[in-house]
Amino acid sequence: MIIHIFFILSLVSSTSFASVLDFCVADPKGPQNPSGYSCKNPDQVTENDFAFSGLAKAGNTSNIIKAAVTPAFAPAFAGLNGLDVSLARLDLAGGGVIPLHTHPGASEVLVVIQGTISAGFISSANKFYLKTLSRGDSMVFPQGLLHFQLNSGKGPALAFVAFGSSSPGLQILPFALFANDLPSELVEATTFLSDEEVKKLKGVLGGTN
Amino acid sequence: MIIHIFFILSLVSSTSFASVLDFCVADPKGPQNPSGYSCKNPDQVTENDFAFSGLAKAGNTSNIIKAAVTPAFAPAFAGLNGLDVSLARLDLAGGGVIPLHTHPGASEVLVVIQGTISAGFISSANKFYLKTLSRGDSMVFPQGLLHFQLNSGKGPALAFVAFGSSSPGLQILPFALFANDLPSELVEATTFLSDEEVKKLKGVLGGTN
Amino acid sequence: MIIHIFFILSLVSSTSFASVLDFCVADPKGPQNPSGYSCKNPDQVTENDFAFSGLAKAGNTSNIIKAAVTPAFAPAFAGLNGLDVSLARLDLAGGGVIPLHTHPGASEVLVVIQGTISAGFISSANKFYLKTLSRGDSMVFPQGLLHFQLNSGKGPALAFVAFGSSSPGLQILPFALFANDLPSELVEATTFLSDEEVKKLKGVLGGTN
Amino acid sequence: MIIHIFFILSLVSSTSFASVLDFCVADPKGPQNPSGYSCKNPDQVTENDFAFSGLAKAGNTSNIIKAAVTPAFAPAFAGLNGLDVSLARLDLAGGGVIPLHTHPGASEVLVVIQGTISAGFISSANKFYLKTLSRGDSMVFPQGLLHFQLNSGKGPALAFVAFGSSSPGLQILPFALFANDLPSELVEATTFLSDEEVKKLKGVLGGTN
Amino acid sequence: MIIHIFFILSLVSSTSFASVLDFCVADPKGPQNPSGYSCKNPDQVTENDFAFSGLAKAGNTSNIIKAAVTPAFAPAFAGLNGLDVSLARLDLAGGGVIPLHTHPGASEVLVVIQGTISAGFISSANKFYLKTLSRGDSMVFPQGLLHFQLNSGKGPALAFVAFGSSSPGLQILPFALFANDLPSELVEATTFLSDEEVKKLKGVLGGTN
Amino acid sequence: MIIHIFFILSLVSSTSFASVLDFCVADPKGPQNPSGYSCKNPDQVTENDFAFSGLAKAGNTSNIIKAAVTPAFAPAFAGLNGLDVSLARLDLAGGGVIPLHTHPGASEVLVVIQGTISAGFISSANKFYLKTLSRGDSMVFPQGLLHFQLNSGKGPALAFVAFGSSSPGLQILPFALFANDLPSELVEATTFLSDEEVKKLKGVLGGTN
Repeated sequence: MIIHIFFILSLVSSTSFASVLDFCVADPKGPQNPSGYSCKNPDQVTENDFAFSGLAKAGNTSNIIKAAVTPAFAPAFAGLNGLDVSLARLDLAGGGVIPLHTHPGASEVLVVIQGTISAGFISSANKFYLKTLSRGDSMVFPQGLLHFQLNSGKGPALAFVAFGSSSPGLQILPFALFANDLPSELVEATTFLSDEEVKKLKGVLGGTN
Repeated sequence: MIIHIFFILSLVSSTSFASVLDFCVADPKGPQNPSGYSCKNPDQVTENDFAFSGLAKAGNTSNIIKAAVTPAFAPAFAGLNGLDVSLARLDLAGGGVIPLHTHPGASEVLVVIQGTISAGFISSANKFYLKTLSRGDSMVFPQGLLHFQLNSGKGPALAFVAFGSSSPGLQILPFALFANDLPSELVEATTFLSDEEVKKLKGVLGGTN
Repeated sequence: MIIHIFFILSLVSSTSFASVLDFCVADPKGPQNPSGYSCKNPDQVTENDFAFSGLAKAGNTSNIIKAAVTPAFAPAFAGLNGLDVSLARLDLAGGGVIPLHTHPGASEVLVVIQGTISAGFISSANKFYLKTLSRGDSMVFPQGLLHFQLNSGKGPALAFVAFGSSSPGLQILPFALFANDLPSELVEATTFLSDEEVKKLKGVLGGTN
Repeated sequence: MIIHIFFILSLVSSTSFASVLDFCVADPKGPQNPSGYSCKNPDQVTENDFAFSGLAKAGNTSNIIKAAVTPAFAPAFAGLNGLDVSLARLDLAGGGVIPLHTHPGASEVLVVIQGTISAGFISSANKFYLKTLSRGDSMVFPQGLLHFQLNSGKGPALAFVAFGSSSPGLQILPFALFANDLPSELVEATTFLSDEEVKKLKGVLGGTN
Repeated sequence: MIIHIFFILSLVSSTSFASVLDFCVADPKGPQNPSGYSCKNPDQVTENDFAFSGLAKAGNTSNIIKAAVTPAFAPAFAGLNGLDVSLARLDLAGGGVIPLHTHPGASEVLVVIQGTISAGFISSANKFYLKTLSRGDSMVFPQGLLHFQLNSGKGPALAFVAFGSSSPGLQILPFALFANDLPSELVEATTFLSDEEVKKLKGVLGGTN
Repeated sequence: MIIHIFFILSLVSSTSFASVLDFCVADPKGPQNPSGYSCKNPDQVTENDFAFSGLAKAGNTSNIIKAAVTPAFAPAFAGLNGLDVSLARLDLAGGGVIPLHTHPGASEVLVVIQGTISAGFISSANKFYLKTLSRGDSMVFPQGLLHFQLNSGKGPALAFVAFGSSSPGLQILPFALFANDLPSELVEATTFLSDEEVKKLKGVLGGTN
């Protein structure tokens, strides 16, 4: 009996290396590398590192887009670090919209939980694909392409989206153009938009220059 | 005017290669390669290739596990091919369980839509991580590790799970052991289970040998 | 003597599999997979498959952006298929601009050959990075982020750009918004742009709806 | 002469970055990231970091499975870190068996050095593949699938196995089920095994709860 | 009873997609892509596709290098296709040597089965690492670097090597330089070797030009 | 107004994780991992981290090869870290040559800016591919294969080369053989070169032993 217990213990100890592979719970205080966050000491990892309650509450949609994106990404959801998958919650009040945006590092798949959502994306070949989705319908948005989600029903809408990365990134077009210090003349020169339009939207969205 | 229209057309035509990168909608009739299914001709791709309605309906839980897994994987959800993300729907009636299983090719993240689910996984270091999850809670199961989901509430439970692969695979432990022609003596020799137990479960689950 | 010649022949024949790894020259007539184009029969591959003369000539800059992008991507440059690198040539006449655009599948690095180019990109954190580059200067644009290049000198400018993919894709923002059949009301709802602005630019760039 | 010596030195110094690519010998005291262990300072790397003598000695097979797995993984074999390949040695005494197990992060290929080994795996499609292998025979076990190796000859058997990862992980099924604190009722609910069987095997293998 | 049998069948049928992920046995008659060979129809796959007996017999060492490399790569070992691991057998008669060579697409790890082998590699930083290895010793050769193996014992030597690719490639330096139609003046200009030396070795190894 | 400004701020703050994905500017003082250098704190990243002026000046070609390679790799070009692309500048005086070399970790694509360059590579199948390239011509060299570039015109030649890695490595054959402490008898045993030739070239290139 002693023998095989020892055997098991030796197997267990020889698999301490396995923490690299099994998981690498994010330690946001350690250095980051291109592959992600540093790993928390496996001995201090608990079940709580693999769970996340931040998607349970609806996001605040009292804003200009009548919508909210609540991410469950690394390092907030620490157990996702390095695992190439993540989630987000989309809440869209009546008339709400997630403006045109891209995720530089991952494809996205959406499933509607409540309401009706019209979603679309534009391909590199400049073709536009649009679907109106009801409860339980899903849609995929290939990596890096401009896409949007829009509440096209009467009541509020809820969807969950999944990404093939623990940190997919998010670049929202109108904020990228009008909500930072990118000079107006550069916006105009690189989009063909008029000076009036750019300045008006910089005013609305808080951009300068 | 003619000039820039031509310019746009020439850009569009020069991006015909982009179909490789933007997406590769599965053509299940073409040859498969390690990277996935052949790509459908981009000219025949429509918005319907990027949408999937198979998750809208609850799976049939009138079975031995009182549960159902409904996948939204490639090639059924053709637009996912090559995009490293997919979904599935879990329906668990009262007392339902998704037995211990692994996905050989992807990590999984789950979000509870309805009910209460107890979920757990076992690491390579032979440690057990268990969480009880309510509506809106999420949990991650690192790639290739044994895990399960169990309805621990009173009514039915519903969850969506996402994977970092368009074809994550699924190996359900009791079916792998007891629902095929793997000879009983090999099951016994490689699991320490008794002959009675193996033969009893082969009977229940339809295995032979 | 016969012995070692046979030895060499046997080694050579046993490395016929190596064509998979060494290279996979694109055969655009075969099926595509997520990893790229089918491979041309290695016996029919010649040195010409690894060379490309399409970058030797300046692109035609007599157009609305006074600029031209000439790609050296797979399958036109057949030897690049599967090798995760490619090139393009940028010609910018005086006042020329490559409008805001993204490459969904690759990072880009640029080197200026002639003239002066102001180039910038916007990060996911909505920060703007701008550099003015002279002959021999280089700049990197991380994968999937909006960026532009603009001739900020007096004469014409020439640059070469490299990508970490043989098919990086290209999504030019004003064309994605205004040069296809994406309905105006969707452009407006998802960008905050005004109806007048959208319709005016659809007129200029050839979009409908 | 001085000129080219300087030239060589400058080339050598300019390739100090190359340590990232050539190799990243594990420094187990530095932080880990999803890609592996921190790199030892290249100036302190010696030939000993690329060699490993731990496979020279037979593992101790005086245990319940009459078998032993001796891994040559990172960080014990420090030079493997980040290189996507590793080895292990399997010793099977008469009647010995490596129980059903998975490697969550890598495929495995085995070659028999001595004796006769029956090896099998079960696919996601629940199909069983079995081969009896003699000296010099090899067999592949695709990533993440349940498989086993069993001495089916008369004397002891020896095999080496290789993995496409420097840290493939190892989850041995009977230990995952019966040698930790995973509660018996959860084992039973998620495997269909009986309470008697589970408790008996927990007793044998050292599990609690 | 009928219910759960049906359930199992439906699970099995819904995992027909899993063939993409579990394995992709090479069908050398189908088209190749950058990711490897086409997949054989899963219904025609048998256990024999996952086994290989070609390593059982010693290679013929009656040649100029008194050594032989016997590969177990895809597609000869069909089950390896797409699985990122492979094997080869090295036989070295007394005085035998595997000349300086590289594997363009994979790192290698070697284990000595019989005899004594001196093995070394040269890094990008132009540093040389040498080890003398006895039975059971292992050594790693990082991807793409020049390395060699040499019988430094008295009797014959045998080793197995593993690669992190199913098709690692093999470029043997003296054959690359002297056993093809690469013109002598190009060899000389690009290696600093003398015309006499190049022509002498072209004579020995069968090269022309 | 306050509401949507807050909304934007919250989005921006929730995308602080995005630094992992968008970019990971090299901090050469932090630990390295297999995926590259540690990331600089995103708050300290400036536009200068994404630009590099080191390619603006011709390399010094007053040396034995009448040529110079000037790399723009990480960490010198810090913004490239983790982005899988990089550049180098090749200057070849009249008669200049970049000797036979490999990049262990990346494919290369070259474009001629000035002059005439003859470039070639040798495949794993021991086949030789040669092209003479004029201004604007490009050529690809698949990963890990021996290749060279040679000024075959009358005046000086200039080319830029791109790699599908931020740290492609560089192993120059004659330096690997003759410019380090690799013992002459090992060079001879593993290349078939004569003792005289090896010692002569060690003398020229500064090697010892």
